[in-house]
Amino acid sequence: MAVIYRVNMSEKSVRVEEPSEDYLELGGRALTSAIVAGEVPPTCHPLSAENKLVLAPGILTGTGAPCSGRLSAGAKSPLTGTIKESNAGGQGAIALATVGVKAIVLEGKPANGKLYRLRVNADGVKIEPADDLAGLGNYDTVARQFDKFGDRVSCISIGQAGEMLSSAASIAVTDPEGRPTRHCGRGGLGAVMGSKGVKVIVVEAADGRRPKPADADAFKKGAKKLNTALKGHPITSEGLPKFGTNVLANVINDAGAYPTRNFQQGQFEGTEAISGERQHDLIVERGGKIAHACHRGCTIKCSRTYVDENGEYVTKGPEYETIWAHGADCGIDDLDAIAKMDRLDDDFGLDTIELGATIAVAMEAGIIPFGDAEGAIGLLEEIGKGTPLGRLVASGAEVLGKTYGVSRIPTVKGQAMPAYDPRAVKGIGVTYATSTMGADHTAGYAVTANVLGVGGSVDPLKPNGQVELSRNLQIATSAIDAAGLCLFVAFAVLDDPTALEGICEMLGGLYGREFTTDDFLAVGKQTLARERAFNAAAGFTAADDRLPDYFKTERLAPHDATFDVTDKELDKVYDFIG
Amino acid sequence: MAVIYRVNMSEKSVRVEEPSEDYLELGGRALTSAIVAGEVPPTCHPLSAENKLVLAPGILTGTGAPCSGRLSAGAKSPLTGTIKESNAGGQGAIALATVGVKAIVLEGKPANGKLYRLRVNADGVKIEPADDLAGLGNYDTVARQFDKFGDRVSCISIGQAGEMLSSAASIAVTDPEGRPTRHCGRGGLGAVMGSKGVKVIVVEAADGRRPKPADADAFKKGAKKLNTALKGHPITSEGLPKFGTNVLANVINDAGAYPTRNFQQGQFEGTEAISGERQHDLIVERGGKIAHACHRGCTIKCSRTYVDENGEYVTKGPEYETIWAHGADCGIDDLDAIAKMDRLDDDFGLDTIELGATIAVAMEAGIIPFGDAEGAIGLLEEIGKGTPLGRLVASGAEVLGKTYGVSRIPTVKGQAMPAYDPRAVKGIGVTYATSTMGADHTAGYAVTANVLGVGGSVDPLKPNGQVELSRNLQIATSAIDAAGLCLFVAFAVLDDPTALEGICEMLGGLYGREFTTDDFLAVGKQTLARERAFNAAAGFTAADDRLPDYFKTERLAPHDATFDVTDKELDKVYDFIG
Repeated sequence: MAVIYRVNMSEKSVRVEEPSEDYLELGGRALTSAIVAGEVPPTCHPLSAENKLVLAPGILTGTGAPCSGRLSAGAKSPLTGTIKESNAGGQGAIALATVGVKAIVLEGKPANGKLYRLRVNADGVKIEPADDLAGLGNYDTVARQFDKFGDRVSCISIGQAGEMLSSAASIAVTDPEGRPTRHCGRGGLGAVMGSKGVKVIVVEAADGRRPKPADADAFKKGAKKLNTALKGHPITSEGLPKFGTNVLANVINDAGAYPTRNFQQGQFEGTEAISGERQHDLIVERGGKIAHACHRGCTIKCSRTYVDENGEYVTKGPEYETIWAHGADCGIDDLDAIAKMDRLDDDFGLDTIELGATIAVAMEAGIIPFGDAEGAIGLLEEIGKGTPLGRLVASGAEVLGKTYGVSRIPTVKGQAMPAYDPRAVKGIGVTYATSTMGADHTAGYAVTANVLGVGGSVDPLKPNGQVELSRNLQIATSAIDAAGLCLFVAFAVLDDPTALEGICEMLGGLYGREFTTDDFLAVGKQTLARERAFNAAAGFTAADDRLPDYFKTERLAPHDATFDVTDKELDKVYDFIG
Repeated sequence: MAVIYRVNMSEKSVRVEEPSEDYLELGGRALTSAIVAGEVPPTCHPLSAENKLVLAPGILTGTGAPCSGRLSAGAKSPLTGTIKESNAGGQGAIALATVGVKAIVLEGKPANGKLYRLRVNADGVKIEPADDLAGLGNYDTVARQFDKFGDRVSCISIGQAGEMLSSAASIAVTDPEGRPTRHCGRGGLGAVMGSKGVKVIVVEAADGRRPKPADADAFKKGAKKLNTALKGHPITSEGLPKFGTNVLANVINDAGAYPTRNFQQGQFEGTEAISGERQHDLIVERGGKIAHACHRGCTIKCSRTYVDENGEYVTKGPEYETIWAHGADCGIDDLDAIAKMDRLDDDFGLDTIELGATIAVAMEAGIIPFGDAEGAIGLLEEIGKGTPLGRLVASGAEVLGKTYGVSRIPTVKGQAMPAYDPRAVKGIGVTYATSTMGADHTAGYAVTANVLGVGGSVDPLKPNGQVELSRNLQIATSAIDAAGLCLFVAFAVLDDPTALEGICEMLGGLYGREFTTDDFLAVGKQTLARERAFNAAAGFTAADDRLPDYFKTERLAPHDATFDVTDKELDKVYDFIG
């Protein structure tokens, strides 16, 4: 049976724990949120010893289920003050699952401010001094681990931003090639890891302790069903592998929902130059790689490697959200500059969405002008130098905006909005407003029915039906995050009933009993209820489930749209919680 | 009848308004809070056009009532997000009252980012361009006004911090000698004035329109009663004139409640060197002035002028809170260095309490060491240069702490705690937690009964009785703030029933009808109820009426005290609101 490791960084002790009955069938976000909601004092300071950082593979991770390699990180967030779960691909989750790790819970805080490495293998977890890694970026940090432990280990690490306890710091996970390119980006969980003094977790995979389905045949049947559905859906079988996530740039720009220059406009005149199509051609032309899998067992392969003019590796992707954040939102239309920023974000260990949004706010503040790619790179480089300006930029849009007196700050609960203007995609606006995580597109990706025609169709410009759409997606997403599945399986799930059948059959096969769609959704509902309860105890109320006022009054071109889902409607999203 | 001037800075227009029935008997805080609560959208951004800055003399200001020269400034606060009233002495309020100004309401926001001067005289209010004042400190700003308009005008102005829209920016009011030393310090109201593009308000006093008591004899009788009570109380007749507010340093240090090095200890080994007694001797020795009145008609005269070794004027006071904030809280025991910081704060236009607390947090973050007076002055000088570090320091303790990952940040609702550790003066802890303004000692100064033996005696180290004490003081204070009386009349009020009789007789004389103690307290209750309602609509709940967790767990030497007034008790403070 997979176990929970309690790693106490005050005492430098490790305790192995059999999961209690309550935690037994939980994984990923369901487990991180259960532990955080159950054990962390809701009013504690996120960087205090009382907070806990939970790392958990999904419940299907390591089973061979398609696209099931997500690693969930959970804690009270230093960015939002809410509970937080942020998940990433890469090899880390699978590696943990192979050595029987259900979760690692980092507790306490070292008194001495020193840095440590955790080594995780089939024998357990060891705490080792790692002060030699102080001040290193993620790329150098993991390179030293591969030198020391061989290139088959996986790393979960923080860069300079996590060490500086910055609110936009991420946790990096290495991909199959050992690059620290997949990030639990949102909510500053890298700062929580930094506050625990853990610079890197090195995982040596082993095959003996993978989770084994109780009913292997049922499991295989389900896996095959999901696989077939993924292969049959045009987005997961064609759009994403060929153009990557950035296939969305032209689509969202055409919809008038591509936030431009700090959410001042809904269309960017430079979209073509930074589109997925252009990115594809450039990568192919230069000899980069498209259709790259961020973890083994991924059949969608939306990742890619971005190379420079000489064919030298620069960074992964970059992803749609990153290209938007550092591109359109800053008025920048230069893919090479954006790739350079993505590389800096990954190396320093930063959430690319928050960082792009922060630079856009810095542009609105007049620190540098919109469109200034060199200036934007310069702002990021300040983080590496640890200057006051760098610390500010690494603290996110809300703090930088407050410091410079900016009144247009596109955040909810302190977290920057991603790449869809909520005035022109109102379903995602409902998700931004009401998610337990602050503004987060992945929490309930209503772009599906609002824009993509996936899972039905709901007019993105009208308030009608958005609450129901967002609610259903938030529930389903929470369950997908618990399973450890990549959210992109949702495209198939929403259009093809056999996909969810496959997922439930895999879970049923794993547990050795029937597992229905209702059982699946119950996991999502229970997790959201726990997260809401934590947030309520931390002081969050309906008043926090709102967009900033200016989205309700400032009209967005080209649709002349405002966000007009009423507060009363927003307050119905969680009606399902008793 | 005194009138309300509506100054719309979007349109550059001025509208004169007779006060409505509702506003007729309101002044000071009662009026600013009524207007803000009634007219400002509670969820608006504090620096947006929707916020309003209200400046109002007290209801007794200009009548000749003793110690009645307070000017209230009110708005939604950029520091706390709550409603905010901050009041100051100086000549501004009296000057406004003499020309029949009940309130000036700054509305809208100039689109062009330019600066303006308001000229106020018996003829009304004029808006004039003032871009030549951009970037000037308060001292230079007011000097240019005196050059232009003669030295009998009074000025209400902002320095560089207000122009930069910094969350700790104050509004300065000139004293009888034309020095910009009296500040509406708390809550960043200088940034709201800056967002309205108003650099300075120049008031030309005239005697024709002073408020006239309907019953002059009753008024005079009341004024005499208050005067006699003030002359008879040892604090207002001896302690404050001789030693100034800093008479408290030794007293609070002896009580073990003098927050030292960012609230790490309750006693400072350097207290003697920065005490009121030492300050008195130094000022007298160097030829400065003690027993200075910050406005004409003040009989307490707690102000003083601080001079350097050569007898040259440096700054006023400094006050107890300032000396603590830049002194003990930073581990600094050098009065000359503290006076220099006070001067910089006044010139840049900053809240000295917030600034001292912010520098202490910067010390805890390791930016400079505790006790480093030169380093602390250097941090303030960054503000004048407008550097990123300067902007951060001018944004207050919470933002700076968040940017540097500090988990011990002594704030409530984003505002830094003043000079009394809530663990050792639990009544003031109740006020910090529950005040409608964020952590604020003046909102309900329980130090009286907790430490000074004024108004009874409540053991400062026990939780018992603190809620009732704080509640009663919060109500009375709110009424005193409405009257335009200096809070220090409360020492007399608390110990001598004739003082409050005198105040009520003056108010009755002013209105020409009977005015009881209950009527007086009703003003306080009504104002608090309005403020609470605004805050609730802005999203504040009981969860915000709390001290940071660490005050409940970290023990304070020498009493080994924690803050142990329960949440349930705290939630009873506003029981009087139906």
